[in-house]
Amino acid sequence: MTGIAAGEVAEVVGGAVEGDASVAVRGIAGLDDAQEGDLSFLSDSRYASAVSATRASVVIVPTNWKGAAPCTVIRVEDPARALLGLAESLGPPPVVYDPGVHPTAVLADDVVLGEGVHVGPHVVLDAGVRVGTATAICAGCTVGRESVIGEDCRIYPRVSIRELCRVGDRVLVHSGAVIGSDGFGYLPERDGSWRKIPQIGTVEIGDDVEIGANATIDRARFGKTVIGRGVKIDNLVHIAHNVCVGEHTAMAAQVGIAGSTTVGSRVQMGGQAGVADHAQIGDGSVIAAKAGVVRKVPPGTRVSGFPAVPHDAWRKAHAHVMHLPKMREQLKDLAQRMARLEQERE
Amino acid sequence: MTGIAAGEVAEVVGGAVEGDASVAVRGIAGLDDAQEGDLSFLSDSRYASAVSATRASVVIVPTNWKGAAPCTVIRVEDPARALLGLAESLGPPPVVYDPGVHPTAVLADDVVLGEGVHVGPHVVLDAGVRVGTATAICAGCTVGRESVIGEDCRIYPRVSIRELCRVGDRVLVHSGAVIGSDGFGYLPERDGSWRKIPQIGTVEIGDDVEIGANATIDRARFGKTVIGRGVKIDNLVHIAHNVCVGEHTAMAAQVGIAGSTTVGSRVQMGGQAGVADHAQIGDGSVIAAKAGVVRKVPPGTRVSGFPAVPHDAWRKAHAHVMHLPKMREQLKDLAQRMARLEQERE
Amino acid sequence: MTGIAAGEVAEVVGGAVEGDASVAVRGIAGLDDAQEGDLSFLSDSRYASAVSATRASVVIVPTNWKGAAPCTVIRVEDPARALLGLAESLGPPPVVYDPGVHPTAVLADDVVLGEGVHVGPHVVLDAGVRVGTATAICAGCTVGRESVIGEDCRIYPRVSIRELCRVGDRVLVHSGAVIGSDGFGYLPERDGSWRKIPQIGTVEIGDDVEIGANATIDRARFGKTVIGRGVKIDNLVHIAHNVCVGEHTAMAAQVGIAGSTTVGSRVQMGGQAGVADHAQIGDGSVIAAKAGVVRKVPPGTRVSGFPAVPHDAWRKAHAHVMHLPKMREQLKDLAQRMARLEQERE
Repeated sequence: MTGIAAGEVAEVVGGAVEGDASVAVRGIAGLDDAQEGDLSFLSDSRYASAVSATRASVVIVPTNWKGAAPCTVIRVEDPARALLGLAESLGPPPVVYDPGVHPTAVLADDVVLGEGVHVGPHVVLDAGVRVGTATAICAGCTVGRESVIGEDCRIYPRVSIRELCRVGDRVLVHSGAVIGSDGFGYLPERDGSWRKIPQIGTVEIGDDVEIGANATIDRARFGKTVIGRGVKIDNLVHIAHNVCVGEHTAMAAQVGIAGSTTVGSRVQMGGQAGVADHAQIGDGSVIAAKAGVVRKVPPGTRVSGFPAVPHDAWRKAHAHVMHLPKMREQLKDLAQRMARLEQERE
Repeated sequence: MTGIAAGEVAEVVGGAVEGDASVAVRGIAGLDDAQEGDLSFLSDSRYASAVSATRASVVIVPTNWKGAAPCTVIRVEDPARALLGLAESLGPPPVVYDPGVHPTAVLADDVVLGEGVHVGPHVVLDAGVRVGTATAICAGCTVGRESVIGEDCRIYPRVSIRELCRVGDRVLVHSGAVIGSDGFGYLPERDGSWRKIPQIGTVEIGDDVEIGANATIDRARFGKTVIGRGVKIDNLVHIAHNVCVGEHTAMAAQVGIAGSTTVGSRVQMGGQAGVADHAQIGDGSVIAAKAGVVRKVPPGTRVSGFPAVPHDAWRKAHAHVMHLPKMREQLKDLAQRMARLEQERE
Repeated sequence: MTGIAAGEVAEVVGGAVEGDASVAVRGIAGLDDAQEGDLSFLSDSRYASAVSATRASVVIVPTNWKGAAPCTVIRVEDPARALLGLAESLGPPPVVYDPGVHPTAVLADDVVLGEGVHVGPHVVLDAGVRVGTATAICAGCTVGRESVIGEDCRIYPRVSIRELCRVGDRVLVHSGAVIGSDGFGYLPERDGSWRKIPQIGTVEIGDDVEIGANATIDRARFGKTVIGRGVKIDNLVHIAHNVCVGEHTAMAAQVGIAGSTTVGSRVQMGGQAGVADHAQIGDGSVIAAKAGVVRKVPPGTRVSGFPAVPHDAWRKAHAHVMHLPKMREQLKDLAQRMARLEQERE
């Protein structure tokens, strides 16, 4: 790539150039990382100060941005959105997964593949598996008996999907993820040992879901574990048996949801947050990073801490924890003065 | 499955029918998820209210349950236990792993397999590996030099077991788990870099252990990391080098145990709990979700928080954190009133 | 191994024997785990008391150690360092990965392998992959298009490296780790759904890095995610897109770093710690286990808690939380006494 001129970029994104429209960009980078020849963008006004210090050759900024840049600027309504199209033009050519079954793949006789399906090296598809049109199952994946995968999915290398699971259309599953492992369920025996409860349910994953690397989604004890349409799950997230996650909910890395919990639609969960079993998270709520939800979060509520409480109350209360040493001193001082007054009174 | 009548179910579980004994069930589901035609059960009295709202056709309840159900009821002593047998009858036929070695598996010449062992596609068994009778090593697993796996185990697809590890009988290891990876140990060099300590120990896993998806169990620096008989480990749990876990201990998802720590027998650890290195957790103790144990937990103690303290004290103290803003106001108010009294006195 | 005499051990490590120099050791173990015939060592003065109770036959202690041991003692300047050489002599013979490409591996036509490279069974190397001299890529690994792996690396079984990543020399990657998975980035659409931001950056891993089992390192949105030279990453750690980690930083298990965060050099992070996106961690700082860093940590600072604050302040404040119930009682008592005094005054 010999680079494209700022003027051409502006044309692609429908923006207005300020400065040298002939300067060429050859890559895309964050404001901080960018080098000469890079295109960057200001997507979040919190980082506006980074524009003045960037080494990028061109920066895409919001129409209403007020500031000085050491380089050519392109104004658009929504820089992040403008970058989407550009990324496709400027990024490396995407990896293409050619249709066909690699000779090292092992497919049961009755596997059904749609048109244009890619089955990579060392993939294993068990009896009764069905794969929809144009889906890619990459190297080293295993899919258990009678599981069904939709159209236009990409299952990255080394994913495990156990038997009887259903995956929707346009689903992305990243490497190392495990779908349909047994739920964690035991009955206590009198001698203190544990008796395994058979985990005979399944997992159902809606359309347009993305599942992060090394995430785990357990099958239901009975019935099914459900991941709703459009849900986005980051790396190393754990979803236990019989959990039900509503549409378009997003979970950051290392979140854990215990068994039989219901998470509503359009919920956002910060990294390392946890939810106890049989809990209920209302639609549109926001669970802060590291929060621990024990029972119930009403719809539209933002909660923090463990046990999780409304965020503002948590913030206010926890700010005071740092004042505790001083508060104890004040208490002691007051107690002494009180004793003195009481003594004098007698 | 055309369904079985409530009367038949009652016969299998040895229970007493109340209501229509001829109604047929075709599946098993939780009280909340159940649809018409499903059998459900009340295993925990906390959820007794869900019985009255269930759409299940039949519900198994404890003998002493008092309540109204919109469907046929079967009374038994222990509903959860009764379900175990039924699950086997009503669930999908279990996946069978036929004896034999798949032609794509790669076995060293001196590997020893017991009778009825299943070795799936693309499995790799290194020199000196021994596998006990009737064990299934599923697709894509790798087992390192001289590791020994017992009888009747199921090693699900894509598990890694490194060299020189020992796995007992009837052990279940879920997909993506890693057993015998190097412990995390370095010596600081003077230039601030780290020198790796050779991790020349092993891992020993007792009988009847279950290990969750993508869990990791490191080999010992010297000696061995020990997982006792009957231990149950959930997904994404981390067990560091030289940890010793006693019999029948259960760890929920995302628990982490640092190096050389001893966890007693019949301990229960909630999700995302952590334990520092060289700590000691006494037998029968309960570590709450998200708790962080720094040093020692006496036997039979329930602890919470970080650093972990006895649960009741933690609960009492943390409930007060939310009152801190008010407490500071009260302190301020008292200080003002005190100053006024002191002034008046002069 | 029939054992070697304490006198020989002392010679190897350059130490002075006290007690029976003819006693033989056959293994190495921690002070607590050691049995008769084991060699042990006291590397941390905190555990000095364990020497007197050990069952080891020989213990290596620091020159200045003062105490009584029930066995032969060898004094050296730095016991842990002395053990390094010994471990190599006393441990099992290391696993050797013979040069050559296993016939079941699948390599694109243009893959370039250095001298002495080992490519194990069922490995997949895509178009344009290059692997440096003497590196071992073990069974079941997958390496995506045009990724480059340096010399003398060991990539343990079942690791995934996606396209266009660069791995330095002498890098160890443990089983199940995923390098180059997509960053977690979406733009909100008006209907509440999420639009994926293309993740067109890469990952760059410096020399002498170690990456733990089932850890995940995401590729950059644009530009690259950077893991500096000599960094040590434990199991199940998550590193998000565009994170930059400085040289010789060490992260314990289950740490999570959110997107675009900069972690300095020689930082130490305890287990289950988390760092928010766009945060900055200064060189040489220490992040306690379970801490949550929200914005910034100055160089050389030790922080704890969530949100993380300087450790000493955190410890002091949090010790007081347990006194809260008593503090509230004292407040109540003072308020009553104050009211009485005020009443009397009128």
